[in-house]
Amino acid sequence: MQNAAPELVPTPHLDTLLDLALAEDLGCGDVTAAALVPRDAVAVMRVEARQRLVLCGAPIVDRLLWRFGPGAPVIKWRAADGATVEAGAPLARLTGRLRTLLALERTLLNLLQRTSGVATHTRAFVDAVEGTAARIVDTRKTLPGWRMLDKYATRVGGAANHRMALDGGILIKDNHLAAAGGVAAAVTAAKRNAPHSLRIEVEVEDMAGLDAALDAGADVVLLDNFTPDQVKHAVARAGGRAIIEASGGIDLSTVRAFAEAGADLIAIGALTHSAPAADIAAEIDG
Amino acid sequence: MQNAAPELVPTPHLDTLLDLALAEDLGCGDVTAAALVPRDAVAVMRVEARQRLVLCGAPIVDRLLWRFGPGAPVIKWRAADGATVEAGAPLARLTGRLRTLLALERTLLNLLQRTSGVATHTRAFVDAVEGTAARIVDTRKTLPGWRMLDKYATRVGGAANHRMALDGGILIKDNHLAAAGGVAAAVTAAKRNAPHSLRIEVEVEDMAGLDAALDAGADVVLLDNFTPDQVKHAVARAGGRAIIEASGGIDLSTVRAFAEAGADLIAIGALTHSAPAADIAAEIDG
Amino acid sequence: MQNAAPELVPTPHLDTLLDLALAEDLGCGDVTAAALVPRDAVAVMRVEARQRLVLCGAPIVDRLLWRFGPGAPVIKWRAADGATVEAGAPLARLTGRLRTLLALERTLLNLLQRTSGVATHTRAFVDAVEGTAARIVDTRKTLPGWRMLDKYATRVGGAANHRMALDGGILIKDNHLAAAGGVAAAVTAAKRNAPHSLRIEVEVEDMAGLDAALDAGADVVLLDNFTPDQVKHAVARAGGRAIIEASGGIDLSTVRAFAEAGADLIAIGALTHSAPAADIAAEIDG
Amino acid sequence: MQNAAPELVPTPHLDTLLDLALAEDLGCGDVTAAALVPRDAVAVMRVEARQRLVLCGAPIVDRLLWRFGPGAPVIKWRAADGATVEAGAPLARLTGRLRTLLALERTLLNLLQRTSGVATHTRAFVDAVEGTAARIVDTRKTLPGWRMLDKYATRVGGAANHRMALDGGILIKDNHLAAAGGVAAAVTAAKRNAPHSLRIEVEVEDMAGLDAALDAGADVVLLDNFTPDQVKHAVARAGGRAIIEASGGIDLSTVRAFAEAGADLIAIGALTHSAPAADIAAEIDG
Amino acid sequence: MQNAAPELVPTPHLDTLLDLALAEDLGCGDVTAAALVPRDAVAVMRVEARQRLVLCGAPIVDRLLWRFGPGAPVIKWRAADGATVEAGAPLARLTGRLRTLLALERTLLNLLQRTSGVATHTRAFVDAVEGTAARIVDTRKTLPGWRMLDKYATRVGGAANHRMALDGGILIKDNHLAAAGGVAAAVTAAKRNAPHSLRIEVEVEDMAGLDAALDAGADVVLLDNFTPDQVKHAVARAGGRAIIEASGGIDLSTVRAFAEAGADLIAIGALTHSAPAADIAAEIDG
Amino acid sequence: MQNAAPELVPTPHLDTLLDLALAEDLGCGDVTAAALVPRDAVAVMRVEARQRLVLCGAPIVDRLLWRFGPGAPVIKWRAADGATVEAGAPLARLTGRLRTLLALERTLLNLLQRTSGVATHTRAFVDAVEGTAARIVDTRKTLPGWRMLDKYATRVGGAANHRMALDGGILIKDNHLAAAGGVAAAVTAAKRNAPHSLRIEVEVEDMAGLDAALDAGADVVLLDNFTPDQVKHAVARAGGRAIIEASGGIDLSTVRAFAEAGADLIAIGALTHSAPAADIAAEIDG
Repeated sequence: MQNAAPELVPTPHLDTLLDLALAEDLGCGDVTAAALVPRDAVAVMRVEARQRLVLCGAPIVDRLLWRFGPGAPVIKWRAADGATVEAGAPLARLTGRLRTLLALERTLLNLLQRTSGVATHTRAFVDAVEGTAARIVDTRKTLPGWRMLDKYATRVGGAANHRMALDGGILIKDNHLAAAGGVAAAVTAAKRNAPHSLRIEVEVEDMAGLDAALDAGADVVLLDNFTPDQVKHAVARAGGRAIIEASGGIDLSTVRAFAEAGADLIAIGALTHSAPAADIAAEIDG
Repeated sequence: MQNAAPELVPTPHLDTLLDLALAEDLGCGDVTAAALVPRDAVAVMRVEARQRLVLCGAPIVDRLLWRFGPGAPVIKWRAADGATVEAGAPLARLTGRLRTLLALERTLLNLLQRTSGVATHTRAFVDAVEGTAARIVDTRKTLPGWRMLDKYATRVGGAANHRMALDGGILIKDNHLAAAGGVAAAVTAAKRNAPHSLRIEVEVEDMAGLDAALDAGADVVLLDNFTPDQVKHAVARAGGRAIIEASGGIDLSTVRAFAEAGADLIAIGALTHSAPAADIAAEIDG
Repeated sequence: MQNAAPELVPTPHLDTLLDLALAEDLGCGDVTAAALVPRDAVAVMRVEARQRLVLCGAPIVDRLLWRFGPGAPVIKWRAADGATVEAGAPLARLTGRLRTLLALERTLLNLLQRTSGVATHTRAFVDAVEGTAARIVDTRKTLPGWRMLDKYATRVGGAANHRMALDGGILIKDNHLAAAGGVAAAVTAAKRNAPHSLRIEVEVEDMAGLDAALDAGADVVLLDNFTPDQVKHAVARAGGRAIIEASGGIDLSTVRAFAEAGADLIAIGALTHSAPAADIAAEIDG
Repeated sequence: MQNAAPELVPTPHLDTLLDLALAEDLGCGDVTAAALVPRDAVAVMRVEARQRLVLCGAPIVDRLLWRFGPGAPVIKWRAADGATVEAGAPLARLTGRLRTLLALERTLLNLLQRTSGVATHTRAFVDAVEGTAARIVDTRKTLPGWRMLDKYATRVGGAANHRMALDGGILIKDNHLAAAGGVAAAVTAAKRNAPHSLRIEVEVEDMAGLDAALDAGADVVLLDNFTPDQVKHAVARAGGRAIIEASGGIDLSTVRAFAEAGADLIAIGALTHSAPAADIAAEIDG
Repeated sequence: MQNAAPELVPTPHLDTLLDLALAEDLGCGDVTAAALVPRDAVAVMRVEARQRLVLCGAPIVDRLLWRFGPGAPVIKWRAADGATVEAGAPLARLTGRLRTLLALERTLLNLLQRTSGVATHTRAFVDAVEGTAARIVDTRKTLPGWRMLDKYATRVGGAANHRMALDGGILIKDNHLAAAGGVAAAVTAAKRNAPHSLRIEVEVEDMAGLDAALDAGADVVLLDNFTPDQVKHAVARAGGRAIIEASGGIDLSTVRAFAEAGADLIAIGALTHSAPAADIAAEIDG
Repeated sequence: MQNAAPELVPTPHLDTLLDLALAEDLGCGDVTAAALVPRDAVAVMRVEARQRLVLCGAPIVDRLLWRFGPGAPVIKWRAADGATVEAGAPLARLTGRLRTLLALERTLLNLLQRTSGVATHTRAFVDAVEGTAARIVDTRKTLPGWRMLDKYATRVGGAANHRMALDGGILIKDNHLAAAGGVAAAVTAAKRNAPHSLRIEVEVEDMAGLDAALDAGADVVLLDNFTPDQVKHAVARAGGRAIIEASGGIDLSTVRAFAEAGADLIAIGALTHSAPAADIAAEIDG
């Protein structure tokens, strides 16, 4: 697994997303709190899991508080990213002005619910293939603006990242094949023209495609919409000449069959495009 | 319904989010296409529904193409936001350089799948209460950075927007009540201190809370985790003195019961925090 | 009054404005100080009122110093936002490198002079209606880019905020009425289509308009260019059925007459569009 | 005069300010118009002067519309920047969707009212010294974030710009003198250390200071809080050896006396820190 | 070669850099042109090579003009990126307002001189190894903020890109080896933990390191500071099991020896960190 | 010299450039380090000169670390900006997490190598004219986006800055002369129209041009492509009436001749457009 110790390196991209999140919820300020809560009231906010989940998002929330600037609450985490916690488990405790806690509560929860949701959903797939040699990998089907966070969450969940962006991997699909004049020509051109730091992956629709990709020297072959049986045959045919990735409509009920069929990698778009939010709540003690 | 003609006014906030989306997927450019696709090749990309769905996102995609700048593909929409289309229905057709179409394909689809997913999920709730007087409303449980788009999508789906941000509505919850010294004191202070353009809404946990809120002159009362029967009693008790909103764990199987119980508004966090992505795909003809 | 404890929640919008302010005055740096002031010289800067004024801007200046980053002077405030101080009163004391103090002096003063100017001008109107039930409210006639700061300053001055933005209140004017087909149709459509968290306000030109608005169930009626006498009649006609707001050409000499006529709210565009800068100066002791 | 043909070069700084202006007023969109105005309704908006004024802001508004992007109204100007127009004069005519016109109306007017207000206020000072050799110059007492626009407006009004930023001129004040060890040392150091493209200006409090500055070879001497008589003596003493600038508490009633006293430049902070907004309004014909 | 048809995909990162470039040179506008050039004067600016060079930068300049916005000059290119042109050759012709041409001239030239300088310098290395199988590759020694442009310029010059960023390739150096516990452990961990889309490259100092890397199954081995003779031995030892990259102090006088020694890739930091600016000038015909 | 104590005032412009630098190298994070380096490993990074150089960049690197935010390494400088150090000299020592040091290493070095390269190159020119009265000045031929840093580096190297931007100096060239109708007309118009804080500089091609400029009262005359002999004649002709600047193709072998010819200023574009990177390296002790 690629998740031994996932790292979230803070970048200006992340800061910009966090700024959007703060701006859109704060508007010109929390009018309810300003009207009702004394300026100097302080409080404690406890963040808790309301379901079994894989926690993901502590460094993101830490960065959010840093962006908020002077006056941000102080946070103390009770669990670390990647930990599986039960319903009711405490996740974090924040101390600060009550007005500020109320102003940040929803944004903080929305962040944690998304990233923990993705990590939890991912972990289910990872657990489902436990004991096999298969790795669960994510896709580029992430929320626009959220690529970095969504892919961090899949790592925290135990998956490996597929390419981060269009410049982080060669993935030759049907349109490229048509433009390049077939599998052999495409792989040859990719070897000649693409950065040497990137492996060459070819997506194929059938066994003939697989053969062509293997003959052309592809490093990775993506089997699109193969059944587990077809994957098994493909793995045998490849005989270790290429990494084999299975993709297309694989869900929790079928993923193990693909793993047992011998796929090295199993790509799951649903890790990020359809992960339900994790149920996380906050209680404030005035 | 608030959805007669939803408007997406472009704002710098939206532009920033679209820029993040472009930046994170483009990186330093699509190395696969640069290696394999002739610079001058042109093509057509057809965007299609792969399931029954409520289309949402045309003005967002239009803006994305505008941000991309000179050289962006030309788009022609085959359906309008809010339209329900069947699986297989054409949604849009883009014409441009093949390299550019490939560079934008994933970002465009990720956008449309999210916003159409929210609109479609919302429409299911709206349809479920058809014929009643209840309005489905969204919440602030939106994706960080996506507030404006998520709330546009719920409008397109037929829901009404709850407050957009912390400055767009007074919603008095338990922490405010504790800080203000009870319902009567809180409503009074809100009337005195909050902008007059905003209604005063109070969240209550039981009938006693409802009575206090009505007596204090709240404009809206949010019934938190009431059963349909309890809602019915609450509506009767209110007798038109306040708008009644039901909230808390309501799903597609129970929403109609709440509507028939007479709630004016039914708030559903799942519209945005757990909407599955709509299945939308693109085919490129080189 | 809405000003018991005004809050300035820092947002990325504010940070961007402060960055513009820093950038435009610093350029590539203060060439005079670089040429003449030793790099390590330290000094104290005392900020003082040069007229009687309502101080406004401490949290803004604090944020400005935070944006400046490491090396910013340390500030100690001698008065708090909302305090009325006399000419000659000390407002703040900054300690730091002399070059840095000189680099920030003008931006800091320009900020304080504007926000204190607005607060001071506002306070004059608030004082003029003291003892009546009328609330002074601001408008959207703020300096472009300064909405959040201008409206914070009016709160500090003792006024209440009218809607912050176009999404923070329903205000139906003549063009809306024409488009919607009259007052009754417009109010009905607003009730159906607009967020329930917002009150419905209608601007009227005469008594007939007022009657129509009241009959349609408007929550607030804005009397445009009514005389105090007309306002008095309108208030009587309304009989508590709606909040009554007076607006249009009201100045310090006439505002009390409108308050005594019974208007609940009196809107004054001049609070922000024509407030003279407060006279504030800085002395540096090398 | 420096205003023969003032130029407003668009810069990213300006675009950022315009984006702030759009964002803060649009929020998530104009809920009133969305509720009441048909999506396809088109209209014409006429912008008119409500007082005699010097128009300033056409290129700023043009840029604002460009930032708004596709769907922005089309504008046709009826007067040009710098023109003096009478109350009632048409300034511009915009054609577009009614919803969009309503969304932009307030921001557009707020911009024009500020910049035309500064230009108009400036013109009054310029007119007051007509026939003399004195030039009216602005100061750095501009609205934070607005430096470029405020100084464009003073140029349009007929004034000349003092330095734009801290890197655009050498202005030696008391703190610099103290740090540098007196006038002679300061001017010498400035000549040695400062960019040669900048003139060296020294602020003096009295005749002795003037003498020291002249002896040291200052290019410009700023007379701080001199009376017209003192200015006259100073001009005679300088005898053309330096440019003479008068500054400090000069208003419309006294400015001509300073001009007639022979000051080359008269600096007026009030051009920008206390200019009343020009009265400009818009009428929309649905 | 990777340069058959290099693509510069516009991204927000590029736009931000161009905005910085515009902002820093325009300041508050070109005061010389505003003082001396009539507002309506139009002119033609011809951009010409003053030395033999490889043109690079046309799409960057096009984007710069787009960022400038309405009023930007119209440009017509006389040569395309990648073309080698002689001293005196016309490169482009711009038509527009003279003031605008003067405002953009320096920024436009500075851009072209840098990117064409890098492309020209790169081409010299590429030409030096012509006829061999070696590819010239760049490094991450690019100008901060300029990664995308510098790497585009090396592609235009005929080189191939090494990894774009830290997430675009696995490159194991001494610190990684120490942390991971040696070559074998590091390569194994990289295979297990790193994205499958990336090849695994190991930097080695000597033949023992090479053997360890080959045994561990590295995809690419970087020979650090090997002589051509040592490279020759290393290539023989590798026998095609890995791609061989030579790096370290290689210049134009020695690069061919490394190519003839059989290195697949030759990394040259000087392509970007020490490329002299190409001599390009502009003539304006008023 | 203008470099007694150069100051780098941090500005939002600088922060934006640093953010671009961080973003472009970090991408979604350092995949090599994440795969191989334990999360909690700490280390020390020593930055060293590999050649004799003038150090420049300490405050820039300090700011870079500040932008990186919480978790940035702690830095301790061993030399100050402006110091000449020998090959092998320690420059700085950073302590922090090993992953973070690896993530920042390249960006930090790229910054220092550029700015120290410019300072070192500049110092060579400054040293070459030592003992004469000539000042070396830079030009606007800086790297786009880098104006502020490049000009800081030339100051650190001992040069003086020419104008920072188009608004920081009047420099009348052939196109201005043509538009204005000759030297006399141009200088007159500049005196009338340009900010008084700026000197008026005219570029001339020959002695006739010089005479015209002197007669018109130019403050500075730029002699374009004069030989040292011609400069000598020009200086004599000027007789102190104007500052004399030599420019055009001057290099290290000829600069002293121009200085000895009596030029007050010698402008060298190569300070910034062709400075080789200084050789600076980092060693990390795990």
